[in-house]
Amino acid sequence: MITSAQNPKVKELLLLQQKSSERRKTGLFVVEGRRELHHCVETGYEVGSVFCCHSLLTDIDGHEGMPSLPVSTPVYEVSEQVYEKMAYRGGTEGLMATVRMRERILDDLRLSPSPLIVVLERVEKPGNLGAVLRSADAAGADAVMVCDPLTDLYNPNLIRSSVGAFFSVPCVACTSEACIAFLKQRGITILTAQLQDSKLYYDTDMRRGIALVMGTEATGLTTQWREAADAHIRIPMLGRVDSLNVSVSAAILLFEAVRQRRKD
Amino acid sequence: MITSAQNPKVKELLLLQQKSSERRKTGLFVVEGRRELHHCVETGYEVGSVFCCHSLLTDIDGHEGMPSLPVSTPVYEVSEQVYEKMAYRGGTEGLMATVRMRERILDDLRLSPSPLIVVLERVEKPGNLGAVLRSADAAGADAVMVCDPLTDLYNPNLIRSSVGAFFSVPCVACTSEACIAFLKQRGITILTAQLQDSKLYYDTDMRRGIALVMGTEATGLTTQWREAADAHIRIPMLGRVDSLNVSVSAAILLFEAVRQRRKD
Repeated sequence: MITSAQNPKVKELLLLQQKSSERRKTGLFVVEGRRELHHCVETGYEVGSVFCCHSLLTDIDGHEGMPSLPVSTPVYEVSEQVYEKMAYRGGTEGLMATVRMRERILDDLRLSPSPLIVVLERVEKPGNLGAVLRSADAAGADAVMVCDPLTDLYNPNLIRSSVGAFFSVPCVACTSEACIAFLKQRGITILTAQLQDSKLYYDTDMRRGIALVMGTEATGLTTQWREAADAHIRIPMLGRVDSLNVSVSAAILLFEAVRQRRKD
Repeated sequence: MITSAQNPKVKELLLLQQKSSERRKTGLFVVEGRRELHHCVETGYEVGSVFCCHSLLTDIDGHEGMPSLPVSTPVYEVSEQVYEKMAYRGGTEGLMATVRMRERILDDLRLSPSPLIVVLERVEKPGNLGAVLRSADAAGADAVMVCDPLTDLYNPNLIRSSVGAFFSVPCVACTSEACIAFLKQRGITILTAQLQDSKLYYDTDMRRGIALVMGTEATGLTTQWREAADAHIRIPMLGRVDSLNVSVSAAILLFEAVRQRRKD
């Protein structure tokens, strides 16, 4: 059992948690939590090392334990004290792992005949991106495209807040230019969420292939996207606040598409 | 200018930030941020003392400064260092205040002819409740009712995450029993969000007066609410994740009501 936070394996994982430069250098990132690790293994990611704290792992009933892994995967048992130092937010799930990145590029995406896509421009907060992935997964979206992002896609807070959707919804980082070209080539309708010069979102046909494009809460979308849009849509703001969290806006728009696309 | 965190006024505010017992004892709570303080003053709350850090207050263009307050309101200028210790999350908005609580009870609520109400049972995370208030405000909801809450309504994280909606949407804490009696007396349809034994939310008539009732992510709703329901509704989960954040669920349901109630 590892009982010191100075252990080289533990220090390696901590570096991967904390530094995007370390993630880029090694091609590894960290997955924390039981459900997350299950999703990760089920969707074919390659696990490097597993860190397990049995005293924490067994204390919650009805949760999944260790996922099935190749026998060659090293599993390190760590003390509760060490585990608490490793866990990103003092989580108590008892299971963490290093996992190999899989860079996804636009041309790898397999889309359904009428794709439902979310595009986020210049997203900054990893927690917001994770929450959008969760909403996108629930709505059965084809992909989330992140244009000119200000966070890296393997940030531990992103993965945590997606509650596993990071592994189920294809998420691609690209430039806005490449993204617009990709969507236009495939005849996917670009709907930009913006307050000015827009129509109500539920008056928009969302049954065809669409990309729902959202900017940051602070500055909104750039001119590049506004001009590339086939239509500008807005969620009515009926109270005093002037905006919604981006994951909430994404969910409202995505589930309107779900409603319009219902088959029965 | 106050330059020491040991100043009694500063210590008083810190206690109010940190301890719900102190808030109850004094009847005061803390509001942080410019927009929040503006909302608070506009909706008639009584401000105790204002703490202002001018070097932070002037550094963001286009934001509101000090709201208009009675001349008798004490305003304390604090140093940047002290302000950073006072701000709940190291915020840099430069404006905080102590504000007098206004306990709201069910019978004080003024409802529209076909009310749109959110009920949260046993909500635990103040940040979630704040985010629900923000969604409720945007959808023009009449009220948010918090039944048997596990957090107090004046938690600073709640107020921050509501981005001012705490002051615009009436929020009442009560027992589930009192809430059910209130809704039934007024003929408000109780719609409980639950996965089992439910129909799709968009197949439900939301034009009449409704209460959208949600439980915790972990344990869902109690039997008391399931049995009090006029209908059980669910948001379809089309991916791998099995739930949405409560503020996201609330927003999807609220904006379906907005869509159905549109006048044009």
